[in-house]
Amino acid sequence: MKKVSLKDIATEAGVSTALVSYVLTNKEKEARVGEEIAKKIRAIAHKLNYQPNHIARSLKSGRSFTIGLIVADISNPFFGNIARTIEDEAKRNNYTVIFGSSDENVDKSGDLINVLLNRQVDGLIITPTEGSEEQISQLKAQKVPFVLIDRFFPEIEASHIAVNNYEAAYHAVSHLVKTGRKRIGMVAYKTSLHHIGERKRGYKEALLAHHMTSGNTLLKSARYSHLAADIRLSIDQLLSGRHPADAIFFATNSLAIEGLKYINSLGIRIPDQLAVITFDESEALDLFYSPVTFVRQPILEMGRAAVRVLLEEIKDNKKEIEHICIDTSLVIRKSCGSR
Amino acid sequence: MKKVSLKDIATEAGVSTALVSYVLTNKEKEARVGEEIAKKIRAIAHKLNYQPNHIARSLKSGRSFTIGLIVADISNPFFGNIARTIEDEAKRNNYTVIFGSSDENVDKSGDLINVLLNRQVDGLIITPTEGSEEQISQLKAQKVPFVLIDRFFPEIEASHIAVNNYEAAYHAVSHLVKTGRKRIGMVAYKTSLHHIGERKRGYKEALLAHHMTSGNTLLKSARYSHLAADIRLSIDQLLSGRHPADAIFFATNSLAIEGLKYINSLGIRIPDQLAVITFDESEALDLFYSPVTFVRQPILEMGRAAVRVLLEEIKDNKKEIEHICIDTSLVIRKSCGSR
Repeated sequence: MKKVSLKDIATEAGVSTALVSYVLTNKEKEARVGEEIAKKIRAIAHKLNYQPNHIARSLKSGRSFTIGLIVADISNPFFGNIARTIEDEAKRNNYTVIFGSSDENVDKSGDLINVLLNRQVDGLIITPTEGSEEQISQLKAQKVPFVLIDRFFPEIEASHIAVNNYEAAYHAVSHLVKTGRKRIGMVAYKTSLHHIGERKRGYKEALLAHHMTSGNTLLKSARYSHLAADIRLSIDQLLSGRHPADAIFFATNSLAIEGLKYINSLGIRIPDQLAVITFDESEALDLFYSPVTFVRQPILEMGRAAVRVLLEEIKDNKKEIEHICIDTSLVIRKSCGSR
Repeated sequence: MKKVSLKDIATEAGVSTALVSYVLTNKEKEARVGEEIAKKIRAIAHKLNYQPNHIARSLKSGRSFTIGLIVADISNPFFGNIARTIEDEAKRNNYTVIFGSSDENVDKSGDLINVLLNRQVDGLIITPTEGSEEQISQLKAQKVPFVLIDRFFPEIEASHIAVNNYEAAYHAVSHLVKTGRKRIGMVAYKTSLHHIGERKRGYKEALLAHHMTSGNTLLKSARYSHLAADIRLSIDQLLSGRHPADAIFFATNSLAIEGLKYINSLGIRIPDQLAVITFDESEALDLFYSPVTFVRQPILEMGRAAVRVLLEEIKDNKKEIEHICIDTSLVIRKSCGSR
């Protein structure tokens, strides 16, 4: 494709390139050009489909008005909704969002950071993947404006937006205790990511506080790369033996949906035979015959906060780091039975 | 953020910028540099986190090895899965994908096309939004390599990947007839987009072929911008009166999920009181108490075909336009009852 240049437009209009430049790229100098000529130049630019060169504009303003977003897995509706929210909020601020999905893969994450930075984004919003500490530290060292969302690394001082994972898990498990469940299992991910660790800690502390069996034997972790198989195995282990679990707390919506498919296939009825709670909402959990009690993450607030903090960092490089922790709520539905 | 330049590295290494350039950007000339020096240069580049300038590389190779993808709504899992598939396939070909979501909004679509082209993508994969004909024609005029996926405009000659919408709808409705349903309604979108038009046509022709009531009175269309309200109204109309519908064919998964939520709230049982079929699969429809019969779109094949056709266009500008129509399949489950 051949890009239309200011010179092409100047030739067509029979004026100097400088004049075209005044009209199309430099608002302050536009007044120097007669109204009729300006109109003609704009019409020709439109006809030739002139694309203002963002990079040139960026060099002048120091900004490209574009945000890069890296989510962990775009096929997961949780991240699809985060992306949508961030896009809406960015649009309100006249920013465009271009994004990529790291698919929980640290190499892809590194590629995407490089590609987006080389595409002159003004800053990044990232849901960091496991093992990406070095990438995040490097962004910091390079003074790239960025904000982490959903996840963060406690050892790296950086702005982030997160929810109260520990308290939310503690509260969810306590609800299961209150509804009379005695053997509460948890299915989480096998990961070093802090937010999942906090959910596990909330689960264990809640059991401890209620003098229940130590959570360690009933806490199962699935590998992201072997999700379906590991979840089936976890559920088999939880539901077998002389004292099977009477409740399961799932650490994310993906785990819950995969788990409920398997539980359905076993013919186990919810909540009569098994109570279920999960983190995250999902249409699948709304439509389920026993709508699933869930920890609601305020995606809208999270997305808005991320855009606000990032734009402040872009505008003022010396801005202080912000740690924003947003409260979740427990939405109680049929899947736990009633008290 | 200050970008590390070849000169910065040269200064630190105590060598000429040309030497650094040979090592970092010009494989053919790298042999001219002693191995020890080359190693030192690479170590310093790594330490300073030098980012190769994709734009400069692109000028040399004529390519940026980046694909731009514009989906219609990233919060819809159908597009999330398309994005994921395209990304996996692009990765296999050493391309990175950056994407944006037009949210079914023609202005956003135009913005995104400009932003992505200005970011030097080698080509675009687009699910075009209603009213974007001019944008697509302009891409053609500019000779930008691009492929449309899921949707296309019959009046614009351009490469596209689509499914057999007419036949799939015809087949789905015929299945409802075969299972004994007498009054089959359809809930679709109010849109001029061709693929939805084809699904409506398939529905109407199937009714005609089976000598059933003309589909026009039982064919309802919801506005994208008022989805929930319009779907409720459509279903109320279909289920009211002396001869209520005994089956509904939903034109997409979003329509089906929203519709089933409302049908649930009315206490209507599926399939006993109402049979349901939809286009598109979804975890919500899998987990539903009466798993929903659906038209499976082969997302993996669609994504792979889109990447293949686009990369061929990028490599060979004179390549002929390809129209790829992939067959769907009807996955029969409980929601239609049995024959």
